[in-house]
Order: sequence, then C-alpha cells, then structure tokens
Amino acid sequence: LKIALDAMGSDNAPRTELEGALLALDKDPDLELVLVGKEEILRGVQQDFPKGRVQVVPAPDVVGMHESPAETLRRKPNCSIARTVALVKDGRADAAVSAGNTGAVMAFALTTLGTIPQVQRPALGAFFPTTRGSCLILDVGANIDVRPQHLFQFGMMGAVAASYILKKANPSVALVNIGHEETKGTDATRQAFALFKASELNFIGNIEGSQVFAGIADVIVCDGFVGNVMLKLTEGLGETMAKLIAEYLSSESEYRVRRWFSKPVLREFLGRVNYEEQGGALLLGINGAVVIGHGRSSPNAIKSAIEQAAFSARENTAGHIRDRFARLQETAVG
Amino acid sequence: LKIALDAMGSDNAPRTELEGALLALDKDPDLELVLVGKEEILRGVQQDFPKGRVQVVPAPDVVGMHESPAETLRRKPNCSIARTVALVKDGRADAAVSAGNTGAVMAFALTTLGTIPQVQRPALGAFFPTTRGSCLILDVGANIDVRPQHLFQFGMMGAVAASYILKKANPSVALVNIGHEETKGTDATRQAFALFKASELNFIGNIEGSQVFAGIADVIVCDGFVGNVMLKLTEGLGETMAKLIAEYLSSESEYRVRRWFSKPVLREFLGRVNYEEQGGALLLGINGAVVIGHGRSSPNAIKSAIEQAAFSARENTAGHIRDRFARLQETAVG
Repeated sequence: LKIALDAMGSDNAPRTELEGALLALDKDPDLELVLVGKEEILRGVQQDFPKGRVQVVPAPDVVGMHESPAETLRRKPNCSIARTVALVKDGRADAAVSAGNTGAVMAFALTTLGTIPQVQRPALGAFFPTTRGSCLILDVGANIDVRPQHLFQFGMMGAVAASYILKKANPSVALVNIGHEETKGTDATRQAFALFKASELNFIGNIEGSQVFAGIADVIVCDGFVGNVMLKLTEGLGETMAKLIAEYLSSESEYRVRRWFSKPVLREFLGRVNYEEQGGALLLGINGAVVIGHGRSSPNAIKSAIEQAAFSARENTAGHIRDRFARLQETAVG
Repeated sequence: LKIALDAMGSDNAPRTELEGALLALDKDPDLELVLVGKEEILRGVQQDFPKGRVQVVPAPDVVGMHESPAETLRRKPNCSIARTVALVKDGRADAAVSAGNTGAVMAFALTTLGTIPQVQRPALGAFFPTTRGSCLILDVGANIDVRPQHLFQFGMMGAVAASYILKKANPSVALVNIGHEETKGTDATRQAFALFKASELNFIGNIEGSQVFAGIADVIVCDGFVGNVMLKLTEGLGETMAKLIAEYLSSESEYRVRRWFSKPVLREFLGRVNYEEQGGALLLGINGAVVIGHGRSSPNAIKSAIEQAAFSARENTAGHIRDRFARLQETAVG
C-alpha cells in the first residue's frame, strides 16, 4: 500500500512529516510512502528511510496556512498539496495525507478527484474518543451553512465509513442538538431529523453535547461550524488539563506519585482527548482517500494520519460510499 | 440580601434544593432565602433552617422538564417558577434561582420582569474555567437563530457583566469562529465582527474552540446553539474523564497513589471543567437577577447558583446593563 504524504504541510514541515513517516514505516511493514515537496530537502534525506520504501515527488511551491484556497487553486498548481492529491488521481498512490492548509487540501481534492455522484457536499469526519471506543463526527469544518439534506447525507456517509472503519454492523447515527425533542434546534436540524427518521439508517435521534463522549452514537452529525468548534474545544480542554496537571506536578514533592502520574495518566487520559492522537480528519464524499492532519501535528500525529489514510484506502471507504449513493439513486430516494 | 429559590426545579427536587439552601446559608451569614414550592413539604422542613432566615411561599404547580414554555405560561401561572420570579418583580427578593425547565424560567422571567430597553434579545451567560480564572460565554441556549446585531449585543451585555462579576476593568471580548480571519464563518459572524470592530468594546477578534479555556478572552460570544453545545460538551468531557479516572483507580493497587489521586485531582481538575461548580447560567438583558441552574444539579451546584445570584444582585448587573444600553441610545449607535 502506497500513501502520498505532503511533506511541506505542517507548521514544522518537513521535519515533523519526515519523523512521522519514519514512525509509520516502522510500524507497518507493508507500507510505502511517496514524499511530496522541495526536491533538494527530500532527496537529501531519502537515504535515512528504509531502502525501496520511499519515493520522492518534487513540488516547487508550498501553500501557507493563511492563503486563500481559491487563490491557491489558481496560482499554485504545482504546490505540494496539488501534487500529493494528483498521485491518488493518477493511481500512483492509494491515499493522500496533508497537514497543510485545510481549505486548500479540500479545494485540490475536490477539483482533482471529484465528488462522488449524488453527494451534494463532501464533509470532514473526525474520530472522537468515547468511553466505549470511538465515534465519527462530521462535518468538522468543510460546510458552514448547511441544508437539511446535507446533514442527512453526512449521516449516510458517516454510517458507511463507521461500518468499515469502526467495524460497526449497523452504526447508530445521532444529530447534535440543544435538546432531545424533535422540535428543538434550527430549521435545518428539525428537517434533517425528519429525513433521518424516514430513512433506513439506525437513527437514534438528537443528542446533546454532553453525550458526545458517552459512546451512545457511532456517527454524530452536525454542521461544519458546530463540528469545528467541538473538535477544537475538545483539543483545547485536553491541552488545558495537561497544563493544569503539569502545574500540579511541579508543586508535588512525592516522587512516587509524580512518577506514576506522569505516565499512564497523561498518556491515556489526555491522549484520548487529544485529537492529534486520533489521526487527522477524513474527507468523505470524494473519489479517493484523503486525510487532512492538524497544522500543529506532532510526528506521532502524522503517523496516526498516515495509518488512518492507509486503513481507509484498504477498506475502500470511498468505493463503499459510491455504492451506497448509487443505491440511493436507484431507489429514487433523496 | 434575599434570594428566591424555586424548590421544585431540579431532577431531585426538593431535596437537592433544600440541601443546597442549607449550604448557601451556612456559607453567607448575610443571606436570606425564600423557598417557593409545595407548601406542605416546605413548611415541614422550615424548622431545619436557621431561625428567621428562611420564608416559604407556596406554589401549587410544578413544571416538568419537557413541558413547552409557551403552554406553561398559559396553563401554570401559579407554578413555582412563576412565583419565584414574581418575588423579584414585587421587590420581595433581590434575585431568583431555579434549576427547573430552562425555557419556562426564561419565559416567566421575560414576561414578568421584562427586557431592558434597547436589548433585542436577552441571553444566557455561563462562566467557564480558564487557565487564568474564568470567562463568561454567551449565549448558551436562549437564542438559536441570531442576527449580527444580537451577537453584538451579547458582547455588550457580557462586557458589562464581566466588568462587575469578574472584576475586569476593560474586559476583552471575542467571537467564536472556525478561524481567526475576519472573513471566516457565517454571514452572522462576519457582520458581527464588523460591528464589534467599529465599537468601543475591547474586541480581540475571532477565537477558535481550542482557545476558549486559554484565558485570552473575558467574554466569549456565540449563538445559543453553539454555546449550548460547548457548555454541554465541556460538561460531558469532565464526566467522561471522571469515569476514566475512576476506572483507573479501581485497578490501581498502590494505596498512597490512590489516596493522593482521589483528592486534589478529582476535586480541582474535574471540578473546574464541571460547570455545575461554576453555578448556573445568568439570564442577562432582563430587569432583574435570575440564575438558571442545571436540572441535574447537586446540592453544591444549587449553593453555587445561589451565590452567583446573590453576587449578581449585589453588583447590580442588570442596572449596569440598563445604563450601558441607555447610553447607547443617547449616542444613537446600534
């Protein structure tokens, strides 16, 4: 399996990407990578990687985090993001990973790979930890203004992804709302509720923010504004708690407690609410597997994003979504 | 100072309210309470309270958590919520506290006490913990569909409340968004950004979910859908972490570690992300001090809500908001 990795995406690129690539190759012996970016840098480090498992594809341009996606599409057709995605289009890679400008990655993925027929809006899905495992939340930032039908389609795509990636036979789908009653929320959530209720999805109704981590829903649907705020709030809370714990530890004199505390607790509790450990966000609804990592990714987060892309490609998530939406057209629903 | 307490509001009413009332009276020697609810129950326990500090006002009806606010207004004019709020209107109490049906409390507060002139939409404000103290987030559930002007007014009311309650000289105000750039977000957030920028408020721009707990903004503005999800997500994450920690402790054999861990950590870390410890939500923009507690309140949460109501009444938050909006009219802005 071959993954195209934009080596120039993250805030500390390419170092973070290169370290993450090494971790990923180390963990999965069947993995090969294509590193995309500044040729002189990548050629210079190529011998540090396991022989024959890493190719380099040069890309002269790099996209900054604050560049406009529309401008980037026009002005930087040879940027590392564009070339990373093109490798999937050309069949030279099975999936693409970038921790670069989210809007630009989406723009190139949509224009290069194209949207799956019947899908009105591709969406970004992210895995959140729950007390029972993981759930998939979408959209986490691709669509700010949504219509009820979009929310419904997010639920359909999420259910397909969850059945293959989370291995859930009949994934439960819930809608984020400010109360359980079907009359609650915005016009969009109320109408989406009706669409879900009339569908064959395993729809369990509205859930409130407090239930996101409870593990009662496998797929959690919301608009991209709400999802983005939820994702980043969770991340911020994890960081805040890590900081508070660090303050405690510096004032705690008992060595044994400090030692115990610094290991399993920090790693497991905070790791679980830190979404970098969960990999990146999966772009669902396009013809191909694309994972968008966090700009502030650590090498470990890059490794997780690569694993997630590999897993999604192996499970052929995009193909299954295509089949599901083709079926939708046949039955003339939606 | 006299606080009217709806004794029938929470899920475990009136026991939780009565225990919370005792805790609050114990802590603040200047406090008096008016307990509102089923007469036979409240008269029966009145002698358990410090002499002369607790009155009882009977209310024959109780509002369920899922009753429609509009129906409640029509059909239950003698419910405990209505009578609790009426005590403030009649000058027989300085503030009102209820952990009952949020929509019903808002409906009675708005119709009985009235909205402050120039305020278009009263809002619910909640205090969130940050690494540097607290911030005030509004709206957390009163207004689902908002116009830019509403968001701007939430910021104005929040700034007044923060200057008196958080004792900030020139509170910083931020807008929740999915990115920092002023072009990000919905039409409402973009236009609200412009209103804030042109105002005399100490507006620091857009913040993302990850920065909510960082303590960079004293007042954080969003619509009621986003705020409600943020509030409940934070609460859910706190509960999830408490559960995970409890699981660890049950498998951890070293007594000394368990003992250390079970005290300061649970109390301080989780207490800080548990918004029940922060009191209830403050209804801003009406003529009076009304605090709405969580239905699942503990006695301690009721105590916090009473303290918050007392503090808001002592600081005359509503009066200061009235002055601020009167000034707005004079200068013909807004």
